[in-house]
Amino acid sequence: MTTPLEFYFDFSSPYGYLASTQIDSLAAELGRGVSWHPILLGPMFQAMGSVPLVQVPLKGKYALHDFERTARLFNIPYATPEAFPISTVAAARATLFLLRHDKALGADFAKRIFTAYFAQGKDIRELPVILETAAQAGADSDALAAGMAGDDIKNELKKNVADAMARGVFGSPFVIIDDEPFWGFDRFPHIKMWAKSHHHAN
Amino acid sequence: MTTPLEFYFDFSSPYGYLASTQIDSLAAELGRGVSWHPILLGPMFQAMGSVPLVQVPLKGKYALHDFERTARLFNIPYATPEAFPISTVAAARATLFLLRHDKALGADFAKRIFTAYFAQGKDIRELPVILETAAQAGADSDALAAGMAGDDIKNELKKNVADAMARGVFGSPFVIIDDEPFWGFDRFPHIKMWAKSHHHAN
Repeated sequence: MTTPLEFYFDFSSPYGYLASTQIDSLAAELGRGVSWHPILLGPMFQAMGSVPLVQVPLKGKYALHDFERTARLFNIPYATPEAFPISTVAAARATLFLLRHDKALGADFAKRIFTAYFAQGKDIRELPVILETAAQAGADSDALAAGMAGDDIKNELKKNVADAMARGVFGSPFVIIDDEPFWGFDRFPHIKMWAKSHHHAN
Repeated sequence: MTTPLEFYFDFSSPYGYLASTQIDSLAAELGRGVSWHPILLGPMFQAMGSVPLVQVPLKGKYALHDFERTARLFNIPYATPEAFPISTVAAARATLFLLRHDKALGADFAKRIFTAYFAQGKDIRELPVILETAAQAGADSDALAAGMAGDDIKNELKKNVADAMARGVFGSPFVIIDDEPFWGFDRFPHIKMWAKSHHHAN
């Protein structure tokens, strides 16, 4: 029995987007599934006393360059969004609502939202963009519009972020595999190496 | 004609240490040499308003784990130093002095200092440790003791740190190849991919 890769991401995270395009093939290579966990970096940054990467002197300019270069090296479509970083609470709530009813649909929607923001120049803060993207994924957008505004979804997102932080999640993308934590798209090769050495050790 | 990999590092950087064990083979694979640049992270962190990684809530604990795990995955000897992070100004000055007289000797010394600190439990702030390590590399430790205390070396280190920052260097390890900047040991695979695509493009 293998457990799925626990995949945590904020929709405003470029490396999270890059990871979202590769997590399925990584999981397939390891013979595992993927659990998709939309989170919000805001409360985590607050706990760490940190600011968004691109706002840090010296590092910010490099980061913008590295996002684009990494996408190019991995042949992933990418265009720096005009508004960045943004609040992704609406998209996260929509994902939670869809995941609750259909895990495959929720995952597909998450990938489409990431692509809309980081490759298609869409503003994923806007409700029409969220609903249209959901409809393209085959969701009932009227049910989504009603459901994502519910208090239960709002509370679930808050709880999920708190639970993630309690597990040690502090960034995006963040993958937990059998309780082993990996932060960053650049740790995907490490996840493979770790999983293979772990497998042999058992 | 190819230019060398410009390799910037602080001796108190675990990922810098890991990189120091792999930079030669990376350079060889790309048909390049390596220029070794000891720097100090202190002034860079000051400019960025950041603190050492291990002091950041949430991220710090993960970082300590990731240092060890990354070393293990790459089969690099590693033991978290008792005192960490530390001031590495003396070791950096010693490296500069040795590099000035013999680039191969300076590079060999730098690798030995990293290993002394991150694999052999030695306190590389101590002058006797520095001189003994230099002697093992074949250096004249009396000449080093006198030379590394000179104002010219002190000023050269300050200038090198300022020059590095002016080039956009803000962390360790940091590699510049043909003006293209890469931060982190985890970017070594990206350097290979970049260098190969860059070569084909010319």
